[in-house]
Amino acid sequence: MSGMPNAATSVPNAIPATLEWRDDTLYLLDQTRLPLEIVVERQACVEQVWKSIRELKVRGAPAIGVAGAYGLCVAMQDSRTESVESFRARLAERAAYLASARPTAVNLQWALERLHARLARQEDAADAAALYDALVDEATRIHAEDQALCEGIGRHGVALIRPGCGVLTHCNAGALATTGIGTATAPMYLAHRCGTRFRVYADETRPLLQGARLTAFELQRAGIDVTLLTDNMAAATMQRGLVDLVIVGTDRVAANGDFANKIGTLGVAILAKHFGIPLYVACPSSTLDLATRAGEGIVIEERASDEVTSFGARRTAPEGVAVRNPAFDITPHALVAGFITERGLVGPPFEHNLASLFS
Amino acid sequence: MSGMPNAATSVPNAIPATLEWRDDTLYLLDQTRLPLEIVVERQACVEQVWKSIRELKVRGAPAIGVAGAYGLCVAMQDSRTESVESFRARLAERAAYLASARPTAVNLQWALERLHARLARQEDAADAAALYDALVDEATRIHAEDQALCEGIGRHGVALIRPGCGVLTHCNAGALATTGIGTATAPMYLAHRCGTRFRVYADETRPLLQGARLTAFELQRAGIDVTLLTDNMAAATMQRGLVDLVIVGTDRVAANGDFANKIGTLGVAILAKHFGIPLYVACPSSTLDLATRAGEGIVIEERASDEVTSFGARRTAPEGVAVRNPAFDITPHALVAGFITERGLVGPPFEHNLASLFS
Repeated sequence: MSGMPNAATSVPNAIPATLEWRDDTLYLLDQTRLPLEIVVERQACVEQVWKSIRELKVRGAPAIGVAGAYGLCVAMQDSRTESVESFRARLAERAAYLASARPTAVNLQWALERLHARLARQEDAADAAALYDALVDEATRIHAEDQALCEGIGRHGVALIRPGCGVLTHCNAGALATTGIGTATAPMYLAHRCGTRFRVYADETRPLLQGARLTAFELQRAGIDVTLLTDNMAAATMQRGLVDLVIVGTDRVAANGDFANKIGTLGVAILAKHFGIPLYVACPSSTLDLATRAGEGIVIEERASDEVTSFGARRTAPEGVAVRNPAFDITPHALVAGFITERGLVGPPFEHNLASLFS
Repeated sequence: MSGMPNAATSVPNAIPATLEWRDDTLYLLDQTRLPLEIVVERQACVEQVWKSIRELKVRGAPAIGVAGAYGLCVAMQDSRTESVESFRARLAERAAYLASARPTAVNLQWALERLHARLARQEDAADAAALYDALVDEATRIHAEDQALCEGIGRHGVALIRPGCGVLTHCNAGALATTGIGTATAPMYLAHRCGTRFRVYADETRPLLQGARLTAFELQRAGIDVTLLTDNMAAATMQRGLVDLVIVGTDRVAANGDFANKIGTLGVAILAKHFGIPLYVACPSSTLDLATRAGEGIVIEERASDEVTSFGARRTAPEGVAVRNPAFDITPHALVAGFITERGLVGPPFEHNLASLFS
């Protein structure tokens, strides 16, 4: 009827995709350059994928899993002309290498093991090319499932976001941490789609500022009302009665419900408890590590001290000062109101109810 | 006996003086350039002093008081040749102007009022020059008293620092916040002088990083074992059992013991309570504002949003994002173990015991 562009389908401010697999090539959004620059990098080799994961260009447990799966495809492209035996041997070696990029990320190990298991089932593969095709097929399934998982988490958490409420989140367990609508953010995106009005408070999340650079960025692009806080403002914001609910993501959940997440999550959880605000942990059920009984069993990665003593290229602390820089902290299950998973909303007792998700 | 320099009196790493009054001139250390540059600025006029206080070049309640007192001297230098009446009228106007630089800083108002009261007693002043001399004399007294107050706070708090203990502090209530050995740091400096070994954990204190730039700087220069943390690492550090004691400063204490301090102090206090760690507030008794009954009566200054969305010249959050940036938060007295003042260590009930300091 009209030559006018259709405003409804043009989305100038859409959130850029975390990753894409196109023409046998993996493309990753370099999240370290957000929010000022949107740079998508073609991953030419497995070493580049390892580095992208290590340097947090792609980050967030689910996205790392998908990136790792496609990364293993990248790693095996040159082996398509080798023998089946040689392909399988190299696969195991490359998978171990990729897994070493982020030892704490259980989703990375999980995705790599799933690719490995898929190939183990291809006993009658004619040649290495067929094995490669099976790898890509499995990685593509993991990718599609991640998107579906996010939607599932959103459906099980959307009712927690009541009209007019304030939701605080820490770090980025958002669309940029997954290949879909995020984990902690999934209920927010669904509530927004439903027309619910609410406000998100995003902790900036030192040292790497994922909250400022990523969460504020993606929620603002999506048209969600978001207010940025330095981490140390969360207490005063809760004290003023502005926060009704906390939703965070997680990198690993132990069998008893203790969970690892970005440094600072423990503090937010203690503050929420103090002010009587429920804290929910959003994650795909693959983040549950039932083999780890409690939080003490989770290894905490210590990161480089210059993340704390500098800001970009600018040094902000005196030379030679001692620094702590644990990437994660462990929040005990007693501070958790519930886990929002794609299989349902899980309340206490967690030891029993988390295990029941898989029965 | 020897031409050798005396090593004991050469202190290459001494903490630079916060301020100096020399030859009728005020010199201020520009603390916004620490820890990388040590720049001392001559204050040419009262507008410059106002700006220095406003822009946190001089900061910390006690130092602001002394700077304000000398600042009023700077303001009145040109009025020495005027009539006594004109001098007095101008004094009131200039004092009100200086007070507006940091409305929350009770020490600033206190110091200015004290200079005013001193002049009110000079009923028989021969001329404006004599009034000016009285002003300078009073400012010099305030300065010397501040140094003595720090030592007094140190003496009443030093026993809290036991051998081998960990002390966490937030922001900078240090030597750089006073003209002496600081308030929160005074017990640390005295314990260090006594040969006690202990470790300090310094929160970096976003958005302006006073902990990283100032506390880590001055403690390291003094040879005290200091470890820098981002604010959101305090919880995990306490959880690991590394913190036995929290000491913070304050900008204003209400009659019931509620106190205002740098944003994030409330969070630290809640964490300390959760882990059973005592929190002490170090301050000169002049910081007690008995006219303000409780914390709700304290006005919280909201600062510019770019402190949160940028880091130096580098923008770290998306354009147009909403931001909160309260300079302070209010910690309720229930979270306080005691106040360390130059008049003694004050425990609960605070309403009664704080008032008793003045009786």
